[in-house]
Parts: sequence; C-alpha cells; structure tokens
Amino acid sequence: MDANELNDKGKKMIDFVSSYWQTIRSRRALSVVEPGYLDTLLPNEAPLKAELWEDVLRDVEQLIMPGITHWHSPHFHAYFPTGNSYPAICADILSDAIGCIGFSWISSPACTELEMKMMKWLGKLINLPSQFYTPTNAGGVIQGTASEATLVSLLAARSKVIKDKNLSFQDINSTKMVVYCSDQAHSSVERAVMLLLMQCRKILSDSEHRMNVKALSEAIKKDLEEGLTPTMCVATLGTTSTCSFDDLTEIGKICNEQNVWMHVDAAYAGASFICPEYQYLMEGVQYADTFNFNPHKWMLINFDCSALWFKDSSFMVEAFNVDPVYLQHVNQKVVLDYRHWQVPLGRRFRSLKLWFTMRLLGVEQLQNHIRKSIKLAKDFEKLVCQNPDFEVVNNVILGLVCFRMKGDNSRSKKLLEKITADGKIYLVPSEINGVYFIRFAICSWFTNEGDVNEAWSTIESLSKDISMQETF
Amino acid sequence: MDANELNDKGKKMIDFVSSYWQTIRSRRALSVVEPGYLDTLLPNEAPLKAELWEDVLRDVEQLIMPGITHWHSPHFHAYFPTGNSYPAICADILSDAIGCIGFSWISSPACTELEMKMMKWLGKLINLPSQFYTPTNAGGVIQGTASEATLVSLLAARSKVIKDKNLSFQDINSTKMVVYCSDQAHSSVERAVMLLLMQCRKILSDSEHRMNVKALSEAIKKDLEEGLTPTMCVATLGTTSTCSFDDLTEIGKICNEQNVWMHVDAAYAGASFICPEYQYLMEGVQYADTFNFNPHKWMLINFDCSALWFKDSSFMVEAFNVDPVYLQHVNQKVVLDYRHWQVPLGRRFRSLKLWFTMRLLGVEQLQNHIRKSIKLAKDFEKLVCQNPDFEVVNNVILGLVCFRMKGDNSRSKKLLEKITADGKIYLVPSEINGVYFIRFAICSWFTNEGDVNEAWSTIESLSKDISMQETF
Repeated sequence: MDANELNDKGKKMIDFVSSYWQTIRSRRALSVVEPGYLDTLLPNEAPLKAELWEDVLRDVEQLIMPGITHWHSPHFHAYFPTGNSYPAICADILSDAIGCIGFSWISSPACTELEMKMMKWLGKLINLPSQFYTPTNAGGVIQGTASEATLVSLLAARSKVIKDKNLSFQDINSTKMVVYCSDQAHSSVERAVMLLLMQCRKILSDSEHRMNVKALSEAIKKDLEEGLTPTMCVATLGTTSTCSFDDLTEIGKICNEQNVWMHVDAAYAGASFICPEYQYLMEGVQYADTFNFNPHKWMLINFDCSALWFKDSSFMVEAFNVDPVYLQHVNQKVVLDYRHWQVPLGRRFRSLKLWFTMRLLGVEQLQNHIRKSIKLAKDFEKLVCQNPDFEVVNNVILGLVCFRMKGDNSRSKKLLEKITADGKIYLVPSEINGVYFIRFAICSWFTNEGDVNEAWSTIESLSKDISMQETF
Repeated sequence: MDANELNDKGKKMIDFVSSYWQTIRSRRALSVVEPGYLDTLLPNEAPLKAELWEDVLRDVEQLIMPGITHWHSPHFHAYFPTGNSYPAICADILSDAIGCIGFSWISSPACTELEMKMMKWLGKLINLPSQFYTPTNAGGVIQGTASEATLVSLLAARSKVIKDKNLSFQDINSTKMVVYCSDQAHSSVERAVMLLLMQCRKILSDSEHRMNVKALSEAIKKDLEEGLTPTMCVATLGTTSTCSFDDLTEIGKICNEQNVWMHVDAAYAGASFICPEYQYLMEGVQYADTFNFNPHKWMLINFDCSALWFKDSSFMVEAFNVDPVYLQHVNQKVVLDYRHWQVPLGRRFRSLKLWFTMRLLGVEQLQNHIRKSIKLAKDFEKLVCQNPDFEVVNNVILGLVCFRMKGDNSRSKKLLEKITADGKIYLVPSEINGVYFIRFAICSWFTNEGDVNEAWSTIESLSKDISMQETF
C-alpha cells in the first residue's frame, strides 16, 4: 500500500504493456509451448525475501509470454473477440486502487449507483425497450460472464415457476423442469441446466441455423402432456458456431403464451446494436424476460463485464435473499443491493469501465469499431467466394465468416492443421450436422485490411496441395 | 488499442491513484451521500463524441469519490479486510493488457499453468496437506469469491452423492439433500443451498461460537432416519461475526464416518496460515474434501482471488463437462482446462496477482502484515478491557475484536449510531443469541497504532453520555 511504489512500478508496468501492444503484431498469435512447460521453469516455493521488479518483468517476457495465446494479435481470429482499450484499462486501475467491495449500497454507494446509471446508458444505446430499465422491478446488472447471466436468469425462471404454481419446497422437482434452446445455443446453456438439475431440450435448428419454432412449440406441448414443466427458453442472437439469429418474435409469442421465461443470449452480437442499422436483429426482444450481452466481447471493454437486464428482477432478488445483521444498513429499503442480483456476494467496481470507455471513446468510436469489424468480415467473405475450391457456410451478418474447402470434411481439417502448424494466424473449427468448417472471426482492434488479405493468402496457399484426394 | 494513449493516460491514472492513496487518510471512511445522489449528477445518455480525459478525472474526484466508502482507509474497520498492494495492481494491469480468456489450456497455456503452480505455492505456504495438490485428481483453482467456492464444492458434493448412490436422473431429489453448517457460518452457505434447492441445517454453536459437534452428529442421524441425504458439511475457520473456529478434527471424523463431503470455509482466517504460529487453527483439515480461503481478503491481493482446493476434483470436473467442437484442442487429454472447475466459462489471468505479490513482497512481508494486524487487534482489545463500561465478546485470535457496552443492547446500538454519525471510523454490528455487539476489524495496511488509539478514544468519548438509562 505504498503510494510511491505504486507510482514507480505502476508506470513501469504501463511502459511494459504499451510496449507489448506495440510489439503484438510480431508475436505468434497461438502459443506453441508443450503441456507442462512452465512447471520446471519456476521454483517450487514462494520466495521468503522480496525479489526485484526487474527480475519479475524479465520472467514475464521470458517465461510467461511464450505461453500466451495473444487474443489481441491482429492475427487472432478464433472464438469471438474479447475487448480491450486504454479507457477500460485505466478504469480497472482506478477500480483496483479504490478496491471497494460493492455488495451493498452502503459499502460504496457510487459503485451501485454508477452501475445503475451505466446499465441505463447501455440499454438506451442499444435501443433496448425501456421495460427493461424503467419500471420499479426492472433493471440491469453487471455479471461476470454470459454463463452466469444464463444461470441467474434460470434461477429467476425457476422461482417464477415455484411462485406461479404455489409449490411447497417438498413439491419442487427440478428434474421435471425443462429448458429449451436451439442445438446452436452456447454450451453454457446446457451447463447451467445441468448445474440446476433440470432437463435441456435442444431444439433442431433450420437450414439457416435458427431455432425451428414449430419444433419448439411441439416440444413444449409434448412436455406439458407428459407432466413436465417448461421453465425457460433461451433464444440466441449471434450463435457461437455461425453467428445466426433466432427469431425472437416467433419464439417470444410461444413463450408468452405458454408462460415460459424467455432469456435472450446476445453475448457477442449485442454490441452491434449500438449501431442503429443492426438493431433490427433483436426485433421481438420485447417478449423477453431477460436480455444479456457482453460489452467485454466486442465493445472494447476488457473482461469481465456481462450486461444482464430483467423486466422483473424480483424473482431473483427476493427468492434468494439472505440478510445477516453484518450486511444490513439503514437505506436498504430504498436502494438496491446488487448482492441479491447475482450468485457471488462480493463484486468489483466494474461500471467504471463502461463509464470511462463510453466517455473517452464516445459512441461514435465504438460504432466505428463495430462497423470496421463487419466490413473486414465482408471483405474476407468476398475473398473466400472468389476461390472455387472454397465455400462460405454462414450468412455473414456481423464479424464472423464460416468457410470450408468444398468436398469432404477431411480437406478442411487438413487445412486447419496446416494453418495451426504454420502459426501465422489462429482459427478454430466448428461442425454442424456433420459438416466441418473453419471460423474466421474479426477479433482485434489491430486487425486491418492488409491483415485480412494476408490471412487469406496464407490460407489459400496452404490449401493448394490439399487435393480432392483428401476426400477419400 | 492505441499503445500511445495507453502509455499517456495509463501513467496519468497511476498518478491519480497514487495520490488517492496518499490522501486516503484524510478522507471520511464511510460515504454520507443520500440514496440516488448520482442519478441527477450524470447525463442520461452516453456521449456521441469522445470527451476529454481531464473532464473524466475531474468527475471521478467530484462525483464518484463522495460516494465511495473507503475500504483502504486506516479508519475502515467494517466487515473484513479486502486486499490491495502495488504488485497486485501491476499484475492486474498486465492481465488486462494481455486480455486473454483462460477457459482452456490452449487459449493461453501460461494462464492455466501459472495458476496450477501458484495454487501449489500457496498450498505449501499455508501448510495445506499435499493430498490437496499432489494426487492426479487433486488441485487448486482460483474462484471469484468464497460464495462461488462454496457453491462449486456443493455441486461436487451433490455429484458424489449421485454417483455413490448410483441415482438415475429422475431419482435425484435435491430437496432431500441436506447441508450442515453452524449458525455462525457465512450467509453465502445458506444461499448456495437455496440456489441448489437443498435443505440447510444450521447447527447451534456453543458458547465459544463453535459448531456443536454433538448436535451435528445427532442432526445427521435424525436426517438419515427420516430418509434424507446428508450431502455436505461446511466448517468455518474464522466466522464473520466473531472470528471463531470450528473443530475440524471432530467435525471431520463425523463427516468421514458418514460419507458427508466436508468443505472448509476459511475465507478470512486462511491467510493467517502463512504464519506457522497460526497453522494450528486448521488442525484436522486433512479430513476435508475441499478447502477455501480468500487471498483477496488479507493477503494483499485485490479482489477477486479466492483459492479453492479439491482432494478429488473429478466430481466437479467430470460431472458438468460440456465439450463443444469450438472449445476442443489436441492437448485436452493431458492438461487441465479450468473451465470445468468453475461455474462461468470465461476467466481472467488472476494467478499473475499471486505471483507478483508473493515475489515482490516476499513471504516475509506478507507474514509481517498478518502479524501487525493481529497485534493491533490485541492492542485494541486491551483498550476495551480497561474500560469497565465495556466488554469484549469474542476470543480475539486474529484481527477482529467484538465488543459492546455492558448492559442492554440499546446502549451499543446507540453508540454505533453515534460512531456512524461522527464518521471518523466505520464499524458494523453483529448479533448472536440476542446479544448485539460491534465489530472492530483491522482492515487497511495503512492502519497503525496511533489510528487504533485514536479510534478507541473516539469510541470512548462518544460513549460517555450513553448512560445506563439507555437500558430501559
């Protein structure tokens, strides 16, 4: 807690990380270390005496950096983006130095109140219907991840079922509760269902990788006939495999009719709604009970910052309220205590990241970032389409292009192996209905047109000796 | 992602936060803003154009700081400490700038491997039996909070019950599963049980605020007779109200005999075990299945960093394994993927904080911090004992003193109201069996002997006109 040491070493750290960003272009995107590489490079015990700053930094460069897969490299095109920007990093420094734990309003009023305000800014910015942040029980909260947002929504949905059916504790049977999502929903949906001991019904998606709404309707009907309890339906905007979009209006009508909690997972795609021209993608969101997207993915905010809105938070807030004397405070009836809105008790001052980033970059720069990413993806799509040996397998709406070599899966598998071995760019595959393909996501702010052209040249040249013979 | 902006603004931020630490002593520990204070001070929408850095920093000082309850003020004695130090902040800057998401080994091998190593360093440092980190399925993982560590342990315990009893999915009835803890366990235990729809049995504590082991044994027996399933028992080392210590050996024997998962919650007290002279407090830990403490409380690591060890992680790791193609990698059979060890999928590079702090401060400075806090608490205890109008109600072992004015609760309530209104120091109350008392925790690294003396002078002088009449 020495302010002078913080001043000195903090600035040295800033020098180090600025230089990291300056050199990131020249680093191999995907780490090539072997499993267990670090174990023998480090001593087996913590040192008794303080070590020198210079020695630690040297080890960061020599021991840690080779084991980093550089998510912000311009050549990183795997998974989905994770955000970063100087305002978000500065806000995190401030959050760390203040170091308050915002579990209740009184434990740092600004921590709760800035979060409430930022969730309104964000809601307005993406044009989320005001039902999600204006009524008394409505509101937004920052969760750590989309996985947690799904889990929290499911806990709320379960509480609603219990309340609606007026179930006594002994009568609650989670194994009869059913959660619906498409077979393209993120794996964390299935996991949340497993954690809560419910059943997960994966509804087949159509040829566009959207949930088959008729199949959803039939599944709910069948489950009701069998005495099961339809509890929640997760609709995805921007699936992980192909960035497809479920039809919220059609799904929403069914959910509302059947009194099934509707959760919208827009983890990646949600950030694009800060651009008015992409807001059509969430048409029907007014039917939802909860809506979630991750500013930490594509809005230049660093992990973790996942935004979740409730139309009626009481199903979460009141259902799991434990209120020991040491956490009570005189204002708790007139303010909200975010500890009731989440699984953990403790929480960091994460709204500072949203505030700093929205103010210091301005909405325009954030929009530019989204638009640039999408343009680069469109550029890449064109390049793929120009080569008759390749095909694009998704409808490229945002920043993800899914492509493959025509013919047997083995060709694309072989190609990805070669890309990975080459190491210039990092991509991951996916597979739908037995069709294997490669995902190319625009992730880093650093990625530019030249990078995309070069990436395609690399892919194309590595593909050249993968003959059609690979299909046999 | 502009490295120059990061360099410039990052250093300005470091200047700002160093100066915050330098002025923290003069700031009122407890914020006195009114609920809703911030709402009207901020615009209702995010700005379209980028704003100036100077304007944002000015607002931090003028709008945010008044709403901060300063957890690192030398006059903050509420709740329990939350850590902070320059090495931890520097490590977080590095973690933010690298910005990798460590859900799988390949997504950044160093992120997984450094965490494995740090959890070994930490385990050795507190003298945790090697059963928790040496066998193949054993190991440590960084969770966000102790609440999540308890939840994850309970999920593992539930999986073990399902496996041991060879239950089919339909036969699982969580409402018949029972979790035991003392009535002094942290509220997050009851909450984890609610989240998983189980029953929580709060075992009465004895006059020393330790779980009554005989009552535990009887409760388990009774539940078994009634066809319920004893699933987990949480033993606490360092309870929140009074920092009391459950008897791990006696509880452990019962748990092992009855095949009940034993989780040890040492959230606060665990850090003291880095000093050999306090390791006796966890005698019997070898009986536990999971052990948790929060380096982010008392080990100068900033939130979040909660250390959880499993003797056998497979009950968590294998029970909830979802493995989509886009997260698979060639090495996943020979390395561990921490995403299976926790509730969320994404995770930050938090082990850097442990590594930086242990190396740059050295074990000795960490031990000094623990010892200094305990000495200050002992000093405060002496001061309280010298005033015949006061009594100490807990056994002061670590850094928490619980005291009250003799006589009716209303006297201590009145006193705490006056302390809060005076605003020099910040304390919170607790209550056990109808006895209300005030907690005085040594929290900040900045707190010194003079501060403790002054705090006591303040308390004593505010108590002077609280006559015994307050008892009627």
